[in-house]
Amino acid sequence: RTNQHRLWQSLMEMARIGATPKGGVNRQAFTELDRQSRELFIEWCRAEGCSIRIDAIGNIFARREGQNSDSPAVLTGSHLDSQPTGGKFDGVYGVLAGLEVIRTLNESDIQTCAPIEVVAWSNEEGCRFAPCMMGSGVFTGQLKLEEMFARTDDDGVNAGQALEAIGYRGTDHVTPENIKAFFECHIEQGPILEDTGNTVGVVVGALGQKWFDLTLTGLEAHAGPTPMTLRRDAMLGAAEITQAINRIANTYQPHGRGTVGVMQLHPGSRNVIPGQVKMTVDMRHFDSNTLEKMAAELRQSVEETRQRHGLEAELVATADFAPEHFAEACVGAVRRAAEMLGCSHMDIVSGAGHDAIFMGRVTQAGMIFVPCENGISHNEIENATPSDLHDGCNVLLHAMLEQAGV
Amino acid sequence: RTNQHRLWQSLMEMARIGATPKGGVNRQAFTELDRQSRELFIEWCRAEGCSIRIDAIGNIFARREGQNSDSPAVLTGSHLDSQPTGGKFDGVYGVLAGLEVIRTLNESDIQTCAPIEVVAWSNEEGCRFAPCMMGSGVFTGQLKLEEMFARTDDDGVNAGQALEAIGYRGTDHVTPENIKAFFECHIEQGPILEDTGNTVGVVVGALGQKWFDLTLTGLEAHAGPTPMTLRRDAMLGAAEITQAINRIANTYQPHGRGTVGVMQLHPGSRNVIPGQVKMTVDMRHFDSNTLEKMAAELRQSVEETRQRHGLEAELVATADFAPEHFAEACVGAVRRAAEMLGCSHMDIVSGAGHDAIFMGRVTQAGMIFVPCENGISHNEIENATPSDLHDGCNVLLHAMLEQAGV
Ligand SMILES: NC(=O)NCCC(=O)O
Ligand SMILES: NC(=O)NCCC(=O)O
Repeated sequence: RTNQHRLWQSLMEMARIGATPKGGVNRQAFTELDRQSRELFIEWCRAEGCSIRIDAIGNIFARREGQNSDSPAVLTGSHLDSQPTGGKFDGVYGVLAGLEVIRTLNESDIQTCAPIEVVAWSNEEGCRFAPCMMGSGVFTGQLKLEEMFARTDDDGVNAGQALEAIGYRGTDHVTPENIKAFFECHIEQGPILEDTGNTVGVVVGALGQKWFDLTLTGLEAHAGPTPMTLRRDAMLGAAEITQAINRIANTYQPHGRGTVGVMQLHPGSRNVIPGQVKMTVDMRHFDSNTLEKMAAELRQSVEETRQRHGLEAELVATADFAPEHFAEACVGAVRRAAEMLGCSHMDIVSGAGHDAIFMGRVTQAGMIFVPCENGISHNEIENATPSDLHDGCNVLLHAMLEQAGV
Repeated sequence: RTNQHRLWQSLMEMARIGATPKGGVNRQAFTELDRQSRELFIEWCRAEGCSIRIDAIGNIFARREGQNSDSPAVLTGSHLDSQPTGGKFDGVYGVLAGLEVIRTLNESDIQTCAPIEVVAWSNEEGCRFAPCMMGSGVFTGQLKLEEMFARTDDDGVNAGQALEAIGYRGTDHVTPENIKAFFECHIEQGPILEDTGNTVGVVVGALGQKWFDLTLTGLEAHAGPTPMTLRRDAMLGAAEITQAINRIANTYQPHGRGTVGVMQLHPGSRNVIPGQVKMTVDMRHFDSNTLEKMAAELRQSVEETRQRHGLEAELVATADFAPEHFAEACVGAVRRAAEMLGCSHMDIVSGAGHDAIFMGRVTQAGMIFVPCENGISHNEIENATPSDLHDGCNVLLHAMLEQAGV
């Protein structure tokens, strides 16, 4: 059994690095604060006798040897970086739950057959340097190292320089081949576990994602003298499409999602009909055919609105992730561990992207969700209970032991 | 008959002050460029033998005496200030058309019974110092001088200081009592004259305006893990209300207008459901009861949307102008002048606010519209033809003569 108090203490100690006044964390990737959190993590891992490897994109691997050091390792972990107004648990929980597993094994003097490793993936949030999940993306070959190094932040600093500057551009060659399975603990970032009164989410996979940038161009004109019939109002088109996106997502329940998060009006004056609107579209579904169908319906709705209001429309795909179905071995291991420990649990699909999704493309992967208060994350008020975090960590321990062998 | 070439030349000369690379004008109120345009106008008026008065808010009155100098004057004019990316005709046309009337009278040695005056109203655009129509608002007692002087620009300079700095905080006491009628020439700022092939718009009045700020507050949440049914999406509410505004305006044609010009999403991230949207509403109608009904329907639609999506809603009125019906004497004078001159003309309702609307509350007022290219104004590409501008000016001359008597 893992130690609830020790896990919570470590989470709180880590949360001091980059702590914000409202109780959150601002610890963006490849900053001085990111460096400090890495140092603390490594210090803790070394104290447990782990060896440390750092790869070219700065992923940190801490290894506890198994009886059979040639056997592929059972890996766990998540990320230490945060959103600018992030919380204390998103990412860091998955890293420190892995550390807690190692501490528990050491304390109980348990030797596993396969080695156990904990990883802190670089730049999962992608807010300073896009895209997100950069560390696991490079590790799994989904993203190219050189391209990632060239990505720049708002000050024009590139990711390669920034990583070098904090001393974490590593030289260790770590590859997915020697990994038997990957597990990731994470807060749910949604309201379902809380809503249903479950402590553990057995994550069976993740929604596919399609992101778009949509630009609607009409004619900027004076709001007073321009009759309704002679308008080419880009905002009216944007409103129609926003509702269409919602309708499309609602058609394909329970897994459909459709969100307009950004909308910029030009010129943005109260008595001028907007001549241009730039908006974003985020569509998700668990079934890839359905996700394609949703995108097709979006395109059709854009076309209809374009014609109806005399607009020009440009729809550009900016991200496209296929749905992920995790390996039954890992999902089963998590479910069995939850059963054995008597945790209330349910199967759940991750609505968000995670490092585990990239890992699922190169090895067997699984995830463990625990509830977060009101489903809120990416927010300084993000919260989770010591007991739920501990339950998830315990499930992780037993799922890993099943895969590693004792 | 007024002189087309002279009018056009004066317009082009004035357009050099604050000329922008794209062919427009940036001559905002109470700036050095505003000062230069005032100096040029006064120089031209003095050359015609006019006496000049400047009141406390900086309105400039140029007077050509009549046979009966005690008789109330027939006044015309508009404004010299422009939008930051304004055009060469909005406002300045009305001032220089008035000057052209005086030049024509002098040239033809015509003596009018009543005095003729031309006014350049201060700060009609209201972009540096809100609100718009500040000069005519103070003159007609609709706005308070002290309050207007206290209005600040983005740099914290107040309007009183700025007016003082350009030397146009005048000491002449000018009041509406001695005005018999006011006429204003203006580009239409809309597409109706062009659409119908008319040269002159006989403006019978102006739409009433109701402006609102609307804030919708829902719950900021992650676009992936948050199911559609558990969302409180402020943007979805904003889209519904945008469509309702359009529907309401379309119900009350031909005079209904409804526009959403500003929409700001918080936090404005592509994978976050907007927790808050701030938007503006601009509603207009020619009938005040109908305008009230439109506002009531807006409030009802906001309430329905609020309930449907679990939002909070705050609707604040930010401007409220009653519809204006111009005096039949002035409207008739304009119509008769257009008939007499053989100009194609139509009755039209001004969709925008103008100084003449405030003037209509203290004296008889009327307006003359001429077409502007594609109905576009408040834009550097704003355009009008020398011939249309001249026709409008000629109508102004004859309408004023009818009122002033020869
Ligand atoms: N976990 C997480 O917040 N990932 C960000 C990418 C997404 O929007 O799913
Ligand atoms: N003429 C003009 O543009 N007035 C501004 C106020 C309005 O929106 O009507």
